[in-house]
Amino acid sequence: MKKVVTLGEIMLRLSSPDHNRFVQTDRFDACYGGGEANVCVSLVNYGLDARFVTRVPSHEIGQSAVNALQRFGVDTRHIARGGERLGIYFLESGASQRPSKVIYDRAHSAIAEADTSEFNWKEIFDGVDWFHFTGITPALGEKATKITMEACEAAKAANVTVSVDLNFRKKLWSSEKANQVMSKLMPYVDVCIGNEEDAEKVFGIKAEDTDVDHGQINHEAYEDVAKQLIERFGFKYVASTLRESYSASDNGWSAMLYDGEQSYLSKKYDVRIIDRVGGGDSFASGLIYGLVTEQPLQEALEFAVAASALKHTIHGDFNLVSKEEVEVLTQGDGSGRVQR
Amino acid sequence: MKKVVTLGEIMLRLSSPDHNRFVQTDRFDACYGGGEANVCVSLVNYGLDARFVTRVPSHEIGQSAVNALQRFGVDTRHIARGGERLGIYFLESGASQRPSKVIYDRAHSAIAEADTSEFNWKEIFDGVDWFHFTGITPALGEKATKITMEACEAAKAANVTVSVDLNFRKKLWSSEKANQVMSKLMPYVDVCIGNEEDAEKVFGIKAEDTDVDHGQINHEAYEDVAKQLIERFGFKYVASTLRESYSASDNGWSAMLYDGEQSYLSKKYDVRIIDRVGGGDSFASGLIYGLVTEQPLQEALEFAVAASALKHTIHGDFNLVSKEEVEVLTQGDGSGRVQR
Amino acid sequence: MKKVVTLGEIMLRLSSPDHNRFVQTDRFDACYGGGEANVCVSLVNYGLDARFVTRVPSHEIGQSAVNALQRFGVDTRHIARGGERLGIYFLESGASQRPSKVIYDRAHSAIAEADTSEFNWKEIFDGVDWFHFTGITPALGEKATKITMEACEAAKAANVTVSVDLNFRKKLWSSEKANQVMSKLMPYVDVCIGNEEDAEKVFGIKAEDTDVDHGQINHEAYEDVAKQLIERFGFKYVASTLRESYSASDNGWSAMLYDGEQSYLSKKYDVRIIDRVGGGDSFASGLIYGLVTEQPLQEALEFAVAASALKHTIHGDFNLVSKEEVEVLTQGDGSGRVQR
Amino acid sequence: MKKVVTLGEIMLRLSSPDHNRFVQTDRFDACYGGGEANVCVSLVNYGLDARFVTRVPSHEIGQSAVNALQRFGVDTRHIARGGERLGIYFLESGASQRPSKVIYDRAHSAIAEADTSEFNWKEIFDGVDWFHFTGITPALGEKATKITMEACEAAKAANVTVSVDLNFRKKLWSSEKANQVMSKLMPYVDVCIGNEEDAEKVFGIKAEDTDVDHGQINHEAYEDVAKQLIERFGFKYVASTLRESYSASDNGWSAMLYDGEQSYLSKKYDVRIIDRVGGGDSFASGLIYGLVTEQPLQEALEFAVAASALKHTIHGDFNLVSKEEVEVLTQGDGSGRVQR
Amino acid sequence: MKKVVTLGEIMLRLSSPDHNRFVQTDRFDACYGGGEANVCVSLVNYGLDARFVTRVPSHEIGQSAVNALQRFGVDTRHIARGGERLGIYFLESGASQRPSKVIYDRAHSAIAEADTSEFNWKEIFDGVDWFHFTGITPALGEKATKITMEACEAAKAANVTVSVDLNFRKKLWSSEKANQVMSKLMPYVDVCIGNEEDAEKVFGIKAEDTDVDHGQINHEAYEDVAKQLIERFGFKYVASTLRESYSASDNGWSAMLYDGEQSYLSKKYDVRIIDRVGGGDSFASGLIYGLVTEQPLQEALEFAVAASALKHTIHGDFNLVSKEEVEVLTQGDGSGRVQR
Amino acid sequence: MKKVVTLGEIMLRLSSPDHNRFVQTDRFDACYGGGEANVCVSLVNYGLDARFVTRVPSHEIGQSAVNALQRFGVDTRHIARGGERLGIYFLESGASQRPSKVIYDRAHSAIAEADTSEFNWKEIFDGVDWFHFTGITPALGEKATKITMEACEAAKAANVTVSVDLNFRKKLWSSEKANQVMSKLMPYVDVCIGNEEDAEKVFGIKAEDTDVDHGQINHEAYEDVAKQLIERFGFKYVASTLRESYSASDNGWSAMLYDGEQSYLSKKYDVRIIDRVGGGDSFASGLIYGLVTEQPLQEALEFAVAASALKHTIHGDFNLVSKEEVEVLTQGDGSGRVQR
Repeated sequence: MKKVVTLGEIMLRLSSPDHNRFVQTDRFDACYGGGEANVCVSLVNYGLDARFVTRVPSHEIGQSAVNALQRFGVDTRHIARGGERLGIYFLESGASQRPSKVIYDRAHSAIAEADTSEFNWKEIFDGVDWFHFTGITPALGEKATKITMEACEAAKAANVTVSVDLNFRKKLWSSEKANQVMSKLMPYVDVCIGNEEDAEKVFGIKAEDTDVDHGQINHEAYEDVAKQLIERFGFKYVASTLRESYSASDNGWSAMLYDGEQSYLSKKYDVRIIDRVGGGDSFASGLIYGLVTEQPLQEALEFAVAASALKHTIHGDFNLVSKEEVEVLTQGDGSGRVQR
Repeated sequence: MKKVVTLGEIMLRLSSPDHNRFVQTDRFDACYGGGEANVCVSLVNYGLDARFVTRVPSHEIGQSAVNALQRFGVDTRHIARGGERLGIYFLESGASQRPSKVIYDRAHSAIAEADTSEFNWKEIFDGVDWFHFTGITPALGEKATKITMEACEAAKAANVTVSVDLNFRKKLWSSEKANQVMSKLMPYVDVCIGNEEDAEKVFGIKAEDTDVDHGQINHEAYEDVAKQLIERFGFKYVASTLRESYSASDNGWSAMLYDGEQSYLSKKYDVRIIDRVGGGDSFASGLIYGLVTEQPLQEALEFAVAASALKHTIHGDFNLVSKEEVEVLTQGDGSGRVQR
Repeated sequence: MKKVVTLGEIMLRLSSPDHNRFVQTDRFDACYGGGEANVCVSLVNYGLDARFVTRVPSHEIGQSAVNALQRFGVDTRHIARGGERLGIYFLESGASQRPSKVIYDRAHSAIAEADTSEFNWKEIFDGVDWFHFTGITPALGEKATKITMEACEAAKAANVTVSVDLNFRKKLWSSEKANQVMSKLMPYVDVCIGNEEDAEKVFGIKAEDTDVDHGQINHEAYEDVAKQLIERFGFKYVASTLRESYSASDNGWSAMLYDGEQSYLSKKYDVRIIDRVGGGDSFASGLIYGLVTEQPLQEALEFAVAASALKHTIHGDFNLVSKEEVEVLTQGDGSGRVQR
Repeated sequence: MKKVVTLGEIMLRLSSPDHNRFVQTDRFDACYGGGEANVCVSLVNYGLDARFVTRVPSHEIGQSAVNALQRFGVDTRHIARGGERLGIYFLESGASQRPSKVIYDRAHSAIAEADTSEFNWKEIFDGVDWFHFTGITPALGEKATKITMEACEAAKAANVTVSVDLNFRKKLWSSEKANQVMSKLMPYVDVCIGNEEDAEKVFGIKAEDTDVDHGQINHEAYEDVAKQLIERFGFKYVASTLRESYSASDNGWSAMLYDGEQSYLSKKYDVRIIDRVGGGDSFASGLIYGLVTEQPLQEALEFAVAASALKHTIHGDFNLVSKEEVEVLTQGDGSGRVQR
Repeated sequence: MKKVVTLGEIMLRLSSPDHNRFVQTDRFDACYGGGEANVCVSLVNYGLDARFVTRVPSHEIGQSAVNALQRFGVDTRHIARGGERLGIYFLESGASQRPSKVIYDRAHSAIAEADTSEFNWKEIFDGVDWFHFTGITPALGEKATKITMEACEAAKAANVTVSVDLNFRKKLWSSEKANQVMSKLMPYVDVCIGNEEDAEKVFGIKAEDTDVDHGQINHEAYEDVAKQLIERFGFKYVASTLRESYSASDNGWSAMLYDGEQSYLSKKYDVRIIDRVGGGDSFASGLIYGLVTEQPLQEALEFAVAASALKHTIHGDFNLVSKEEVEVLTQGDGSGRVQR
Repeated sequence: MKKVVTLGEIMLRLSSPDHNRFVQTDRFDACYGGGEANVCVSLVNYGLDARFVTRVPSHEIGQSAVNALQRFGVDTRHIARGGERLGIYFLESGASQRPSKVIYDRAHSAIAEADTSEFNWKEIFDGVDWFHFTGITPALGEKATKITMEACEAAKAANVTVSVDLNFRKKLWSSEKANQVMSKLMPYVDVCIGNEEDAEKVFGIKAEDTDVDHGQINHEAYEDVAKQLIERFGFKYVASTLRESYSASDNGWSAMLYDGEQSYLSKKYDVRIIDRVGGGDSFASGLIYGLVTEQPLQEALEFAVAASALKHTIHGDFNLVSKEEVEVLTQGDGSGRVQR
């Protein structure tokens, strides 16, 4: 069984139920999630070993985040305890022309204020095949950047494949700062994942002639971006999700993968959205699964896209689907007929 | 007022709320339902007398199933008490490309282990016009098969019209077993109802050139199936629902009726799905209502299809619509304008 | 900051949750609303001063209605206390072909039995720029008609612009009665707002060649209606919402405005409906906002239509959106991308 | 099987969940109840036939009230349809020193405006053993008084035993009016039931030296009241519940019965209150059950008190306990040990 | 009408419903509260004008806190906008031997990082009679201490009576720090309120011979503490709540007031607890109400204690009771009889 | 860190919320539990390693049971997959004089039909210190008896201490059958735990002169029972919980422990009950914790009783308390003061 490690922040997510606006709710549904944690849950669901590395405060809210991971079988033994608070994000679910809204309350979180000494990377990467992080982790601040850097170094030293999801967050850092920090981390990366905008927002590499809000996707432009990324950083693979936002309720969803020579384009799904948070993470985890288990590239890509199409129908950050369920969809049954 | 009797199993239905997956819910919405019970509720809603015959355990969960029927006016006086448990089914509601999922936990139920001596068919069919059962009842096992057979005999002896909904359930029996048992029951049947696949699954009678998962419906093929069914079993009418599963959220829904000479085709509805369980039952009850009240065949069919289109918008197994509401739809108002 | 006054009834709204039918619910979600109250909430959200005038019983249910308005900043100081009951309406939310259903239980309400002496119009209109009422208020009965008439007179005396939303309710009065009463109030009105049917239902003025249930909208016909209204009553502006009811789940939504010389046509939105109650009120308040703040007519209209498109995605009667959120939509971003 | 008829109003009850105050709730739990309806449900639970007579509006809220009764097996065939509204009462559940609060919104209800011609008393009382009404029904107004009077006459003519629960409601009528109306109805009554205060509030007959708020119960005084009642009206039995209100959370609960010669005193229960609405009705139905099935007086009384002690632990107006459950308590097991 | 100003923090309170532990909940009930905000709500409920001064972030969670105050009529015009986050506290409700648990996540809140320049004290205290703050506000940090100091100075300059609730919070500061800061604020204070432990925790002034956990209250000791406080700081009045914690479900609750010459002792209530957060604030607001409206001291004290006894039965931080409801209890009706 | 293994059934528990009766609920709260699983969760909470051995069906309901254990850190690697169904129990929570009610629907469960070959005992007991089972497991049937026997043999062979909780369930087997089967298992047992009635119900060993329903506990009698048990089976320790059922809402709770020479009696707690299911299991796990970590006997006993007193305040089968929380209570703080 392949082993994957991810590093990042897990937050308490507080969402107003049933599409209610923040100002009208007197109740929040609570779950836990974050890009890298979400990837771990998916990988365990697909049958791999996955270890999540972070730091949570040693109170019950911190413990609840750990429990949420354990519930689905994620290895939490290397989660450090300490710090003042667990990061929080508030989520208001949109509909039709009304966009979903996220309010972050994650500053000063336990992981953002963690020290490199709290993680034993040698032990963490022992026997591990793959390491994944996202652009969010270094964006949390100096300390988190340093931790990410050490993790990358240790991963490389242990001969572990490294993937990154660029995941640019404008509320966490500027494009300039992102470019500066991420450029130092990219040399360790083998597989680079992003959405339509990340390459431009992080590295200033543009996908020409695309208008992501209105959904005409220019695949050649994306291939061009991928090519530039590989030229600049020497990645083995570059993958990008391609979201067409018709409205907050309906999206088109596909992806492409470029291996330096050839670009692979996935099937496109029209998804009716229940919860699109974690869509990118479910793609990343599907792709990691496909690559680490050495599937052909087109298959790996289709698995990743189908997995993340399904994610859009599931509440919470975690993509609670099995390998078998994804495969039913990649094999063409999107009819939604009742399974009994 | 016409009187209808149905025989079958009523189960406790436990559904995870709000499209949640089984593995993430800590609460189940509870209601009660089953093919034949659902038919009774509809018929009472349309103004007929309807009596449901089954057996439930003599504890509060059993009583709750009886109460659920009484609430809507179903005659429950001939429900036997005894046995160990009420059958249960778990329902996870899908969306978009993710199908709904049913887990049955119905083995060893009170009705599956009932004895024929517990039902006084003479009394049950006294003054009754119509008897309806589905393929699920004999599929519950030897004892239930025997009860169904006795009910059919008694119905015929009492000059009661008999209808069946083939309702093949692969988790309950094989096609071979179904063919063998159902073939013995069909001689008692006047009206045979099914979906696109039932005739093939139960009797090996094929609708050629149809691809139900992708929705191109070949009406001639269905007429051919109906013709074969009438030839083999001498039914007076054969009806079939025609579902086009675009996704778990949206379906096309129509039906056809064949009277041995002519086939009638209904209007097609594109339904946005709230809950599609009981869709077939709501069609059957609409058709029974139309036929027992001697409506012209096209009208009876349109009533049945409109009724079941509405069912797709209602939570639970029961189709809680009135005759007037169905008629508004058959008369063309599907605009959904607020009624105030 | 502009000041607006509205006069009308605020009711307790009891809605069955999650599309449940009345006969299956054992719980009602409770909120408060009514055409004119809804307008006030929107105007406060857009940054204006808004005062709501009504009468509520002096018990906790009455107080809760007042609190609901205060919560969003509406000025409630001129709400009279007395009477026996707060009007109630029950709401069942439809889906697909099943229409939403409203049961009114509003007879004998506090405002319907209020006396003109309970309102100090001079004080109420002090420093006020705009007065708005709807056809529902005089429809509540003799006393409410008299109050509405006095309010109109006082508004005119205070040099306040007056708008009406015709809002015909067939359960409250006949077209004849409406015509007779409303015709006496129209001389005070500067801006007349309605939906596709109101002009005909209230004044017998027809929009020819339109079939609102099936959505082919004939804009010329509506312009003709507006022209007739202006000719008869001397309004400055006439505006009409144009709803295309594809189903209870999906509607087309646009509007037109006529200034006696030219007709302005808005963009059309295809809305996926969460809650369409208050759609017309959200249009009226958007338009009042645009006009009272002296926006160009096309802009005012687009603001009003975008605002009410958003309303369709929000539970409750109140349109809980900010000016900024409406402007994002009028500026073309209906993609529903997550705001983070 | 004994048959009982009751006549009265059934209301929609809207209660704020979880002890919330009216001004803080945005949701109401909905159920249906009313003194005489509650009695019917209990009697069916104990195995008798019970028929409830009232009038409800012919809309879904009215139908839901009927369904609520049918669910538990009450005979609803003689419920008339018509009128404008179903009476409503709002319930806020208290705790400790904070009392529960009821806001009635029941004026103009369907039954209050019913006509005597809508009820066929001859058919209603055919084969019936017992008729029960409460002081609330005539308090609803002239029409309801007339209906009650006709019902009493018809009951007597049909040789049916008649019981009344005095149930004085100061918001419905004054003591004077109550005395005048009830005094005309009492000649038809065989069994008179009340609480500690009813005899004084309705007939001015005082229980001396009692202080019901602080719970020292003077049984001799109650016997004296009972004696006076029998002297004035010739009842066969007089029964009174004896509530000691320690707080909104804890009450003492017992009762006495007087047969003109001897007074019987029940065991006292200290009840932890979940929902005390319907406490008196559950006593009345327990007593009717005991008397109509000809139990010894002490037993009948103990059954009635135990039944109503249990009612205090059950949400809603209806006392959902079986005869067996009451008997376990009368036989002394109030230990609350888990039944498994 | 008397006007009162309070200054402090309002937080988002996230409580697990129904006594659930943090680690088992997937939902939080959300409301808003904080010592000084709670006082404002009570005072408005009693009929006074109350203005709350704080700072909230300019996003929807901040706005929701403001709305929560507006809903009950608190004047929010002087709430500043800015900063990063609204303070949060998580609440787990205990029972029996299991204590309630609070996890604070309030560091870096908008008010803790506010600047004195954001408040116009002259305007804030214009026409105001009373100013109230608690020891929590200066405990938030340097900036908040400075703001509190300026507020005190401005209040004194405007001839406003000043009260403090000592409210020691060990997680916010040490006793030493508290002593040092609070000692500088006390010269502005006229009325000093605390619980049994505050005087010792803040100023090292001991109530001898008391054992608050086991509830034997030594009133003389408390009088002695009050005397010492007056001697040291020159207060006009000192008041203390006296809680006897029998368990997390049941408490004894009373209070004493000392005017420098005489000590007044209140009635004691045994309260069954629904929610005890805000108990002290409800006492403070009751006392302020009594004193600002110039009630006799014993009456003011009884009002305050009765008000806070009622608070223990109400969910949320706010004490949603009216003056009339408190007076019913002070006049001796704690029987909890249903009010209808 | 000590390692403990338990063997038994984990069931889906379906409880009606908020004290509702089965016949009135339309929703069930779902959690998972069972005597031996509950013990594991507690032990992990106290810091030990705990492994649960059972068999669950390989569908999502089975997986959810496994996830529930993983969430709190239980080692689930030795749970076998297979069989048809997960056992279910329905729970209705009582109050005051109304007892809680359990309906079992556990026949034919996966573990009841498991085969001994599905468990590798050698691996399971590798490095393990303690093995615990209850009388429920062998009561599930022949197969489960055989599995239990093999487990006991393997435990002994591996030098593991064995404890049993007698846990007699009359719905699973008769006293005779229990005596016969359990007598064969007892030779492997070192520590025998039960409640007041188990020794008599299982082995016919009587505690004289006790009346458990009314709570006068005769400690000498229990010591006598313990002595007889040790004489007959050679246990090292015998422990018994001592419940005094005042009502379904309030119980007295204590325990005794006998070591063959001396009997230890615990403090008694009066508990206000939130959920008493799992009370005995929480005692057993507390005692195992104390004994396996070699605490003095009185301390171990007090820990066990305090732990289970706390359990009564927690929803669900699992006792979600930490070692520290239990110790606060054993050290005497049962005041329930808010922890902040």
